Amino acid sequence: MPEQHGLSGRLTPSGHELRQRIYFEDTDFSGRVYHARYLHFLERGRSDFLRLLGIGHAELAGSGFAFAVRRLAIDFLKPAAIDDLVVVHTRKAGIGGARINLGQSVWKDDVPLVSAEVTIALLGPGGRVARLPDAIRRALAS
Amino acid sequence: MPEQHGLSGRLTPSGHELRQRIYFEDTDFSGRVYHARYLHFLERGRSDFLRLLGIGHAELAGSGFAFAVRRLAIDFLKPAAIDDLVVVHTRKAGIGGARINLGQSVWKDDVPLVSAEVTIALLGPGGRVARLPDAIRRALAS
Amino acid sequence: MPEQHGLSGRLTPSGHELRQRIYFEDTDFSGRVYHARYLHFLERGRSDFLRLLGIGHAELAGSGFAFAVRRLAIDFLKPAAIDDLVVVHTRKAGIGGARINLGQSVWKDDVPLVSAEVTIALLGPGGRVARLPDAIRRALAS
Amino acid sequence: MPEQHGLSGRLTPSGHELRQRIYFEDTDFSGRVYHARYLHFLERGRSDFLRLLGIGHAELAGSGFAFAVRRLAIDFLKPAAIDDLVVVHTRKAGIGGARINLGQSVWKDDVPLVSAEVTIALLGPGGRVARLPDAIRRALAS
Repeated sequence: MPEQHGLSGRLTPSGHELRQRIYFEDTDFSGRVYHARYLHFLERGRSDFLRLLGIGHAELAGSGFAFAVRRLAIDFLKPAAIDDLVVVHTRKAGIGGARINLGQSVWKDDVPLVSAEVTIALLGPGGRVARLPDAIRRALAS
Repeated sequence: MPEQHGLSGRLTPSGHELRQRIYFEDTDFSGRVYHARYLHFLERGRSDFLRLLGIGHAELAGSGFAFAVRRLAIDFLKPAAIDDLVVVHTRKAGIGGARINLGQSVWKDDVPLVSAEVTIALLGPGGRVARLPDAIRRALAS
Repeated sequence: MPEQHGLSGRLTPSGHELRQRIYFEDTDFSGRVYHARYLHFLERGRSDFLRLLGIGHAELAGSGFAFAVRRLAIDFLKPAAIDDLVVVHTRKAGIGGARINLGQSVWKDDVPLVSAEVTIALLGPGGRVARLPDAIRRALAS
Repeated sequence: MPEQHGLSGRLTPSGHELRQRIYFEDTDFSGRVYHARYLHFLERGRSDFLRLLGIGHAELAGSGFAFAVRRLAIDFLKPAAIDDLVVVHTRKAGIGGARINLGQSVWKDDVPLVSAEVTIALLGPGGRVARLPDAIRRALAS
């Protein structure tokens, strides 16, 4: 299914990449992309990376689990604008007992627009941090 | 608590009004407010109208209920821009067994920016439309 | 460039269709897609329809022009949820001197989720409604 | 104008605080506030802090200037949910020739929900970083 593969991006040796378009909704009156929108692009990249590893939010939610961001540090290097085509890069930076560290960046052609370090955790019923299930650890270790 | 009253707007003889600020997030590269953002302002107006009538989303959600928009028709008349102060007007237009019709508009000074007719329904467990509980009907009839 | 074609959807005999994923950002605490988010999906559909017809927002903005929504009526029929794959359909419903009427809908498999009628206009410098340039009229008539 | 003062929050000895409501739009299917939404709350806090110091985005934009976020590090400590009332705290952490460092946090009652360090810069025509005008430096030093 090459079309679906395109929609969810593709796995790379170091992680995942996802092409995204800049639409009206992403911009602000300064003419550039609104800074918080990059977090949406990063989240889409993480979701599709996990999706291609066989981990789905809907399935997790059915068991009372959901991923949550615990820490995020992001540098805004260059702006993007309406109609731009950007690529979200995601790579594994470390997997602990209950946390996943990822390095993420958004590029336009050969220029990095933002660079981020993101720590996510899996929250279980009641919102408590849960130990990563073996299935998820195995999928991420692959 | 005059401060809290201000934050949730105020009841008027015909419904409710809520003052809101236009922030970066509301604008797009055209320099105007992004059209879909007005639906956020309208939703805030409805939520605070219901709140001042004693109806809270958190309490409803605790019983498995949530309001959902069923139909919305909106005219975009004049643009708003960054830093503008706007007022969201909400008035009851009709209450059926399972639906609430509202007339809503957003104004800047004496100029209407958008005008909308909105139909909302209460969804129960499983997402099915639920008959409006008497407590909600009474609150809205007041 | 089949990949890029996929990202911007594809032209159909009656208009355009665009596949989109439901991400975290699109949902709300009710577990369903937040109603205003459908307007984003519709806007992406319109932008990519125009893009494949050769009309770009960036080029228009360079001349001081931008499309704006004037009227929108939308029915919310069925909910979508996280991870869902939806298709945005856009078809021309009428082109006037200064306005474009479109019929749009969002589908999940064979089920329509929302159905909308949208009127857009081209705004020129100063925010005034502009007559549609011949190039745009010709592209839409094709 | 106590009402308007409330809408834009208030200056404190160390900076600024702004009360905000959690609405539908701020939540996601996990039942909590979507992580990127906190950046909106932080941006509203910064905008209203600057506003009460006499610095307006609209005026800046009229001269071709706009503030932009250059770096942001944020810890997500506790979740907020629909209907919650939160307070955005902003305090000056350092003012350089072209950059403003701010410490920001969002609280619910006595509990910190997020804690962030934010660096913003003023961008001039062409998107180049501009030296902070004396009027802005004086306002921030006050």
